[in-house]
Amino acid sequence: MRAYDIILKKREGKELTTEEIKFLIQEYTAGNLPDYQISAWAMAMFFAGMNDRETADLTLAMSNSGDTIDLSPIQGTKVDKHSTGGVGDTTTLVLAPLVAAAGAPVAKMSGRGLGHTGGTIDKLEAISNFNTSLSRDKFINNVNKIKVAVAGQTGNLAPADKKLYSLRDVTATVDSIPLIASSIMSKKIAAGADGIVLDVKIGSGAFMKSYEDAKELAELMVNIGKNVQRETIAVLSDMEQPLGLAVGNALEVKEAVETLRGEGPADLTALCLTLGSQMLKLAGVVNDVEVGRERLEKVLVDGTGLDKLKEMISAQGGNSEVVDDLSLLPEAETKVEVKAKESGYITEIVAEEVGLSAMMLGAGRETKEDEIDLGVGIVLANKVGDKVARGDRLASLHVNGQSNLEAAKEKLLRAYTIGSDAPEERPLVYEVIS
Amino acid sequence: MRAYDIILKKREGKELTTEEIKFLIQEYTAGNLPDYQISAWAMAMFFAGMNDRETADLTLAMSNSGDTIDLSPIQGTKVDKHSTGGVGDTTTLVLAPLVAAAGAPVAKMSGRGLGHTGGTIDKLEAISNFNTSLSRDKFINNVNKIKVAVAGQTGNLAPADKKLYSLRDVTATVDSIPLIASSIMSKKIAAGADGIVLDVKIGSGAFMKSYEDAKELAELMVNIGKNVQRETIAVLSDMEQPLGLAVGNALEVKEAVETLRGEGPADLTALCLTLGSQMLKLAGVVNDVEVGRERLEKVLVDGTGLDKLKEMISAQGGNSEVVDDLSLLPEAETKVEVKAKESGYITEIVAEEVGLSAMMLGAGRETKEDEIDLGVGIVLANKVGDKVARGDRLASLHVNGQSNLEAAKEKLLRAYTIGSDAPEERPLVYEVIS
Repeated sequence: MRAYDIILKKREGKELTTEEIKFLIQEYTAGNLPDYQISAWAMAMFFAGMNDRETADLTLAMSNSGDTIDLSPIQGTKVDKHSTGGVGDTTTLVLAPLVAAAGAPVAKMSGRGLGHTGGTIDKLEAISNFNTSLSRDKFINNVNKIKVAVAGQTGNLAPADKKLYSLRDVTATVDSIPLIASSIMSKKIAAGADGIVLDVKIGSGAFMKSYEDAKELAELMVNIGKNVQRETIAVLSDMEQPLGLAVGNALEVKEAVETLRGEGPADLTALCLTLGSQMLKLAGVVNDVEVGRERLEKVLVDGTGLDKLKEMISAQGGNSEVVDDLSLLPEAETKVEVKAKESGYITEIVAEEVGLSAMMLGAGRETKEDEIDLGVGIVLANKVGDKVARGDRLASLHVNGQSNLEAAKEKLLRAYTIGSDAPEERPLVYEVIS
Repeated sequence: MRAYDIILKKREGKELTTEEIKFLIQEYTAGNLPDYQISAWAMAMFFAGMNDRETADLTLAMSNSGDTIDLSPIQGTKVDKHSTGGVGDTTTLVLAPLVAAAGAPVAKMSGRGLGHTGGTIDKLEAISNFNTSLSRDKFINNVNKIKVAVAGQTGNLAPADKKLYSLRDVTATVDSIPLIASSIMSKKIAAGADGIVLDVKIGSGAFMKSYEDAKELAELMVNIGKNVQRETIAVLSDMEQPLGLAVGNALEVKEAVETLRGEGPADLTALCLTLGSQMLKLAGVVNDVEVGRERLEKVLVDGTGLDKLKEMISAQGGNSEVVDDLSLLPEAETKVEVKAKESGYITEIVAEEVGLSAMMLGAGRETKEDEIDLGVGIVLANKVGDKVARGDRLASLHVNGQSNLEAAKEKLLRAYTIGSDAPEERPLVYEVIS
C-alpha cells in the first residue's frame, strides 16, 4: 500500500477502503509518512469529502491510535457530554452533579480553554484545592462511590488526531465537516463512555457559524456513534449570544452554584435540563426524556443537585464551603461598568466578541502557554431582546490591573447592537438529533 | 503575507494576486516554506484551478527563480521547439538541421529520456564524440556561424519548478493542467527563446491521453506565451502509436538521417514539415507557413538539410561520417523478430507499451541513475492500419544480452491489437493553436 495511491484515489473522488484509511493513520502516527503527503490528502478530503463509512473508519483509526480508557469498572451505563465549545458555557458544572443526583453515573473528562472559549478544568480550579488530576483508580472509585467525577484527560488519547489536527491547522484544512466530526468523536470514543450527548453550538461564538453546518456536523457525529456502537445524541443549541450571564472562571462557578440553587439564568437552566434528560435516557435511568426532565427538576428544587456538587468538591479535595459562601471564590479587585450608549432593544450580543473581551481581561488564553486569571471576567446584565435605556448598565467587567481595560471595554461594546425594534427570538435549542 | 492565508484563499476558490503567487514561489524556493503547506496549496490548485493571469504569474515566478539564459548575442529571432514527450519522437534530430538550413537560427536546449519516453541528448550521444555539453560561448558561436546547435541544458533553470514538481510527484498533484502548463513554460521562458513551437502529444504514449486535455494544455501554454511576450504556437499531434518506426537511441539517429535523405517514415517527415514551417514563420523567415513548408521540402530534396546535420555534428566534435555510413553508429549484437500471431489489420500499437519494451531492452531509464544502452531498441515493420498475415514480422528487437528479452517481447506483443476490420484513421496533426 502506498500513500501516493491513496491520495490519488481520494483526489479522483473515489471511496477509500477501511484498510487504506487505517494504513494512512497508523503510518502517519508512527512517523512513517511525511506531513506533505498527509496535508495533500487532507486537502483532497476537503474537496472530495468522505462518506459515512469512511468517516467512521477514520474515527476508529484515530481513536485506536493511542491509549483508550476502560470505564468498565464503573457500574452502570456511562454517558459522556461534549460541547463543541462556547462562551459562558457553564453547563458541565451544573449538569455533572445534577445528572449524578438523578441517578446516572457521570465520569466526565474535560479540557482547558483556548481563545474565546473557556474550559471546565480551568473553571473547577477556581475552587481552592480542587484536584482535576485524578489517578485512574481515584476517578473510577469516586464515580462508583458518589456517582460523579470531573477531571482532566489522562493518557495519550487519539494521538493521531492531535498530530493530524496540528497539520490541518497550518494547511487550511480544519473546516472540513467530516474531518471535524471524526476528530471530536475519536477522542470521545477513546475516552470510553458507552453513550455520548453532544451539545453542538451554533452561532458567532461557536465553531459552526451556521445552522446548516452545525446540523451536518451533528448528524455526521450521531452516525459515527451508530457505526461504532456508541449511542450518540446531538443537541443543536444557540451560541449567538453567550450562555447565561457570566463569562470567566470563578464567575461561572458562581453562576453554576446559583443555577443549582434554582436561581440561575433561564437559558443555562433550560439547556442543562435538555442535555441532562438526554443523558439520563442514554444511561437507561429513564425511558423517556420527559420523565428525565421531571427527575432533574426535582433534584434541582429539592437541593440534592447542589448537595451533589458539594460532595463532588469534597471528594476531589476542594473546599466545598464555597457552595454556601460564594465569597470564598477568587474575586477581581475592581468592577467596571459598561453602559449603553443609546436606548432601545438589544438585538445582538456577539458571543465571540464577549469571549475575546474576557480573554483580554485575563480570563482566557490566547496561546496554550498563557496563564489565566481565575477571578476576572464579565457579567452581563441583560440578554438579547431586553430593553435598555441610554446609561443603563450592560455588563460589569471584573478586572485585576488596568492594562487591557480600555481595549476589552471597546471590544465588549462592539459585541452589542441596540435597535429600535425588538429582535426576532432565536431558539435556545434548535433540534435534537438521534 | 502568510502562506496559510494564500492556501485558504485558493481553497475557497478565490483568485490569487501576483504578489501572493510570487511570495509562495520565492519563499518556497528559498526554503522558507514547508513542503506540507505547498502540497496542500497544490492540491487546492488542483481542485479550484487558476485563471490565465494566475497561470502566467506562476510561470513567470518560476522562470525567474534561478538562472535565465540570454540568447541576445545570437542574430535573428530565436525559436525553440518543445515536445511534451513521446515514443520514437525523433523530430528534433530532423528539425534542427532542416530549419537551420532553411534560414532560421536554431539554438536548441534538450534533455535526457526518462521512463518510456526518450530524450534528444541521449540520442545525439550515439554519434561518437558528439559534445552535448557546450559552453555558453561555444553554443552561441556555433549558432551564429552555422545557424544550429543542440546541447544539454546548462545553468540552474527554474529551480522553483524543479522543487515544486518533485513535491507534486509524490502528492498526486502532477496532472493539473495549469500546473503542467506553467511547469513547461517556466523552463522554456528561462531558456531565452523569442518564440516557442510546442508539439503537444496526444495518446497512450503521451502525458496527455485525451484530445480535450491536450487541447486545454496547448491553449493554456499559448496563452501564457502571449501574457509574457513570447510568441507561442502549439501543434497537437498523435502519440497513440510511436512516431516513425524506430525506438531507441542509435536507431532513431539512423531514422533521422534517412528522413533527411528523403527516405524516412511518412508520419515523421510530415510532422517535421508542420513543426518546422511554424518555426520558420515565428522566426520571421517566411510570412506564411505554406511558404515555409515549401522551403523545408526544398532543403530536404536538395540535401542541404542533410549537409547541415553533418556541419552540426562536426561543429560539436562528433564524427560526421556517420551520416554517410550509418554502420558507424552503435549496433546491437542480435536482432530478434517478433511475429504476428494472427492475420488481420493492425488496429492498435500502444505507444507506451512499445516505449516500456524498449526501456526493458536498455534503451531507456527507469530511474535517473540508470545507464542506457545506445545500440538497443525496437524497429517496427508496420504502422496502424497495415495488413499483416500470421507469422509476418511486426518488429525487430535490437538486443544486447538476453536478460529481459522474453519480458520485453511479451510487453511489445501486448502493444498490438490485430482485428478483422481496418481501423479508422487517426490524424497525425489534429490542430495548430496560436
